[in-house]
Parts: sequence; structure tokens; C-alpha cells
Amino acid sequence: MKINIEAKKVEEVLTRGVEQVLPSREALKKLMEKRRIRLYLGVDPTAPKLHLGHTVTLRKLQEFAGLGHEAILVIGTGTVLAGDPSLRLKTRPLMSEKEVKKNIQTWKRQAGKILNFSKVKIKYNGDWLLKLKLKDIIKIASQISAVKLFQREMFQRRIKMGQTVWAHETLYPLLQGYDSVFLNVDLEIGGTDQTFNMLIGRELMGKMRNKEKFVLTCPMILGIDGRPMSKTSGNCIWIEDTPSQMFGKIMSIPDDLIFDYFKLLTRTSLAEIEKIKKLNPRDAKAALAQEIVRIYHGKKAAEAAEKEFERVFKERKLPSRIRGIEIKEEKLNILEFLVKTKLASSKSEAKRLILQKGVKIDGKIEENWRGTVQIKKGMIIQVGKRKFVRLV
Amino acid sequence: MKINIEAKKVEEVLTRGVEQVLPSREALKKLMEKRRIRLYLGVDPTAPKLHLGHTVTLRKLQEFAGLGHEAILVIGTGTVLAGDPSLRLKTRPLMSEKEVKKNIQTWKRQAGKILNFSKVKIKYNGDWLLKLKLKDIIKIASQISAVKLFQREMFQRRIKMGQTVWAHETLYPLLQGYDSVFLNVDLEIGGTDQTFNMLIGRELMGKMRNKEKFVLTCPMILGIDGRPMSKTSGNCIWIEDTPSQMFGKIMSIPDDLIFDYFKLLTRTSLAEIEKIKKLNPRDAKAALAQEIVRIYHGKKAAEAAEKEFERVFKERKLPSRIRGIEIKEEKLNILEFLVKTKLASSKSEAKRLILQKGVKIDGKIEENWRGTVQIKKGMIIQVGKRKFVRLV
Repeated sequence: MKINIEAKKVEEVLTRGVEQVLPSREALKKLMEKRRIRLYLGVDPTAPKLHLGHTVTLRKLQEFAGLGHEAILVIGTGTVLAGDPSLRLKTRPLMSEKEVKKNIQTWKRQAGKILNFSKVKIKYNGDWLLKLKLKDIIKIASQISAVKLFQREMFQRRIKMGQTVWAHETLYPLLQGYDSVFLNVDLEIGGTDQTFNMLIGRELMGKMRNKEKFVLTCPMILGIDGRPMSKTSGNCIWIEDTPSQMFGKIMSIPDDLIFDYFKLLTRTSLAEIEKIKKLNPRDAKAALAQEIVRIYHGKKAAEAAEKEFERVFKERKLPSRIRGIEIKEEKLNILEFLVKTKLASSKSEAKRLILQKGVKIDGKIEENWRGTVQIKKGMIIQVGKRKFVRLV
Repeated sequence: MKINIEAKKVEEVLTRGVEQVLPSREALKKLMEKRRIRLYLGVDPTAPKLHLGHTVTLRKLQEFAGLGHEAILVIGTGTVLAGDPSLRLKTRPLMSEKEVKKNIQTWKRQAGKILNFSKVKIKYNGDWLLKLKLKDIIKIASQISAVKLFQREMFQRRIKMGQTVWAHETLYPLLQGYDSVFLNVDLEIGGTDQTFNMLIGRELMGKMRNKEKFVLTCPMILGIDGRPMSKTSGNCIWIEDTPSQMFGKIMSIPDDLIFDYFKLLTRTSLAEIEKIKKLNPRDAKAALAQEIVRIYHGKKAAEAAEKEFERVFKERKLPSRIRGIEIKEEKLNILEFLVKTKLASSKSEAKRLILQKGVKIDGKIEENWRGTVQIKKGMIIQVGKRKFVRLV
């Protein structure tokens, strides 16, 4: 297969949205000019939904595939059983096979928005990891220092907090590392949270195959509240958010994230991004939201989402489509009512929303969290700026 | 099967040569009065020879079998692959299956001197451990804190010394622990060096079977130089030492070990031992040597060994049987000569022996370590007090 070795292209793949290349960017560049390399990105199917944070490395994988290199997406059906402790202050619960299977289904569909599966192979590390027997595991473990596995920063932090580290968690990097050995790759890519695991893989590769494995890390993106994007923080933009959800969320990110998002989440050229930097933040953010919605939903949906957003948020009007909900009861306690309409996830959240004056019924702020709602068809309930339902 | 619950017998089994019963001797005693218990002793076939230190726990196992309990000797064909790090300042080298097989052959023969295999079952933990797959190992590992596995005293000592702990070594206690779970035992016995591993097994048993497992530890015996008996210290009395080797070695132990040896290495009654305590140390030690040689070689051999010993060591005469060795060379450097005749294990040891005036050729002390030996048939070489060869 022919590979693209055009210096400018290779350079961009190795720098745009790249935090670090270990042991050296130059050496990897030379290798990529010399021959087709094999690389992989591993993802554990721990949840059913992908968020934009996941797309940074998926996009990077696709870029290598675009240059003609052999790119592999490894779905961690084996590693997921141990549970990656990276960035985890608490042990991950062990997952059932059923959950894993379900997650994989939705993952593939979502990753397909970024990856071209005619160019990127999918492999499942359960296919080799789950076959490992004690003897193999001892052989792998005997290559790596327990001191290193144990003293990683996150574990030490847990211990200081009086939390535990379970023995299976120390095994995780060995399993991820063995993927590299089994696949005999030249390069592994991943988020900066994966640096430790990927370097264990590099060490295993050196010891078990006497081969150099490069490691490329991509920065983690921040969520709509400016903290790292993660499911548990509730600050994610999901790949399968509707166009208007996606547009609205992007419009709510802190201004200083706009150009990181452009660089990491879109393919807009760097020259183009420079131009956008000259716009006011509001317009730059709208251009970003346009572009991201376009990627996942197409140009028409992006334009419609923008119009909708302007109508609701700039003119403070109702959105043109509001979720309809049928309530059988004649009246309901306001807290139960908000939970039932899914505008709040719990009564305590509902109470908080009311106290924050974030709940409007037919345009009027609801102030009494002990109140009762008389159910009427056509009634419109608004929570926060973007959540609406209409009783039908 | 009928079990012996005679209080005095049970009491002796649970106290003579016993360091600790965890969590409590009383509770174990009650269980043993109530029903037949299942217990095991695990040994890893790391070396071809058993020494008297090994017999302490083997004897304890046999005592339980003697009371009618279900006693199992587990030969660590699985655990040996991970290599027990207990008391090891250095990582054990990984062993080949061939070595393991060879060691097992000689082990069974030697353990048969203590164990009655019609009453004690042999099992091989490779039969279940080597079948474990990643999923099983993760399940086992997820029960135990990595902090505990890692922070054991010996590992911390190694780290302070700048030595490494390899990841497979932290797995060892999990594997030994899983033996208890698989066999569903009530009790594990072992040397005090095994306390940590056995307690991990107790924890696994509680978590995976919700069952109490008792742990009984036996003291480690000291070798002929007063340091803990171990292969690497070169201070062992081997089960398969010849009667005169065995007799001579026991006669050379420090006096203060005599009664520990009696208590741990013989079945001489405690009443009898009290009588022997009234003898002078020389005679008490001879009674001990007599008894131990009798256990392994019979009464006649024991008596002959004692006579031989007195002839050589008291009268300073040559032993009646001296190993014959054929040397092809006409002359040899003295150091090479001592190595070749196996009187020294290395040239540096040979040199040291000469400098200590420990080498006699035909009754004359050899003082020049640079000297040359003219090979003559019938020449007698003596190293120390007990090592002789005759050139043939």
C-alpha cells in the first residue's frame, strides 16, 4: 500500500492536537517516511455513549489511516474486565459481559462518525487476552516492576485518601501493554491519561519483542463547564446528542476553549482557524458549533440548529419543537411532577432547581417547592435555558 | 472415618512445634473435636533435595493424618512458576517444567520418609492453577488489596536496598491463597515464613466461600551454623545425607539447638526429652544424632554412624570408608585439584581452605595455595574434619 510521506501532512498529523510523541517525534517521522507503520488506539467499552473527548484520538487514528498507515481500533473486550484505574479515584465496578456487548454495539455506530472502517480495522482484545492462562500472565508480569505498577500517582493518591487499590487494578497496564506485543505495533496512540499504560506497553515490547514502540498522546478536552470532559462530571457533549442539544451545549462552553475545540474536534484548517480568531467570541463560538454539528448531523441540521438556538436564546422565544408528555394524574406535587416529566433526575434536584428559580410553568417562575401542579393540556414547563416540555 | 479427639493428643498436635494458630487455637481445637477437618500443607518443588527444616511441617501434616483428619500435601506445580518471594531478597529465577518434574520425583521419595501416603493425599496445584484464565485471575485479584500485597515487609526491604520486586511476585500469595479456596480446606499449615501467604488465603476463603480457614505455623529450624536452615546458606542437613554425614552434621550444631531439634525433628516424647536434658551436651547431642539417623536410615545405620564418628573424630583416625576418585592428570595446580575432587566448590573456596590450614594431603597440612599436586594412587586428601577422598 502506498503511504503519503508529504512532509507537511506528516508534520501536521504529528503535531496538531498532539501532546507528546515518545521517545521522539523526529524518530517516528523518519520511520513514517521509510515504511508503512502499524498503529493502534485502544478503547474500553465501559459506557454506551461516546462524547466529543473520545473523538480526539479517534480522529488522530483516522488521520494516520488517511496517510496510508495500518490503523487498528482495539476494542477492549479483555481489558474492560480488569477496568482501567487511570484517573480513577475509585475502583471501577467489574462489568458483565452483557453490558460490554451492548456498549460495543453503540460504540461502533458512534465511532463510525469519525472512522472510515474501510481503512481502519477493528480488533477485540478479548480475542487474545481472554485466552491467556496463568503461565502467560506470569511471563508478562515478570517483565515489569511491581514498584512501578504500584507507585503510579493515582494509586498513591488513593492510599493517602484512605481508599484501596485492588490487586486486579495493578494488572491493567500489563494487559493493555500486551496488546502492543500481540499486535506487534510500531505506535500506540491515546489520551494523556493513557501515558502510563502506553509506556508499560513500550517496555513490554522492548523486552518481549526487542522492538521500539512509539507512544503518541493527545490532550484531554475540557467539558462545557471547563472541567475535564467525563461521564461522571455530567459535562459531556455526546456524539449522539441531537443537533440542537449539541449546538446549545457548544454555545455554553467557556470562551477560552473555543480554539482548542476547533483544533481538536474539527478538521478546519489552521489557516481558517486563524481567521476565525479575529471574530468576536460569540460569532467564533457559533462558527464552531456550526462546524461540529455539521460533522455529526450534516450541513442542513447545523443551519437549522443555529436558527433554533437564536430563536430560543437570543429572542428568548420557545423552540419550534418541544417534547410532548402525557400525564395521567389530575394534579401532582411539583417535585414529583418535575421527575415524572424527566426535567429533573430526582426530587432533590427538582427542589434545587426551584430554589434557584430555574423552573417556569407557562412562563411564570415557580417559587414554591412544596406546591402542587394542576395538570392541563398544552401547559409548557421550562427548566433552565434549554429544557422544555409540553403536556399533551 | 473415625477421628481421635483425645484431648491430650489433640493438644500436643496443636502445641508441640507450633508457633501460632490463627485466629485461635481454642476454636480450631473445638472444630477438631466436632468433625473431621480437611487441611493441607503446600510445598513448591524448587529444589531436588529436602532438608530437615522441611520435615517440621511434613511431620505436623502427618500428625493430623494420624488423628484421622483429611491431610493433603499440595505440590506446587502451579505456584512454583510464579516463585514464592517470601524471605527472598532477590527474585527467584523462573523455573522450567523439566526442572520442576525432576524435583517432584525426588521430593516424593524423600517426603515418604515422614509421610504415610496411605493416609496423606498428594495433589498438584498446577492441576487447577495452570487452567486459570485471565478472567479467573482478575476475579481472584479483585478480592485482595494491592496495598497489602505490595507493602509486605520483604518487598519494602528490597526496595530500600535498591532491589526490584517484579509484578509476578506480587501475584504469588493470590495463587497460594486460591489453593485453599479450590480445596475448600479448614486449615493450612506451613512455616512461619508462610504466614503472609496463608493469611491471604484465609481472606480469599472468607470472601469467595464465606468460610473460616485456620492457619497453623511451625517455627523455622536453624542450620548447623545457627543461621536459618536454607539451601543458599549451605547449612542444611539433608534427608538423604548418608548416616555418617547426618550424624557428623548433627554433632556439629550449636548446643543450644539440641532441644529444638528434639522437639521439632523427632517424635521422642516430651517426658523423654526432659530426661535427656539432664545429660551433658555432648551426650545429649549424640542421643539426638542417634535418633535422627535412626528415623531416616534405621537403628543399625545409626549405631554404625555413631561408632564411625567416634573413631574418626574422637580418635582422629581415618573413617573406614573413604570416597575414591580417579584423576587422569599427572599433576595439577592445588586449587584445581581441590575443585576437581569436589572438596571445594570453587577455586576461591579452595584457596580459603588452604589459608585456613584446613587441607591435609596424606596427613600433612598443605600451606601453599600456589602449589602443585603430583597425582599418586592411594593419596588421601582431607578437608576440614569430615571430608576425605582417596585417589584411585
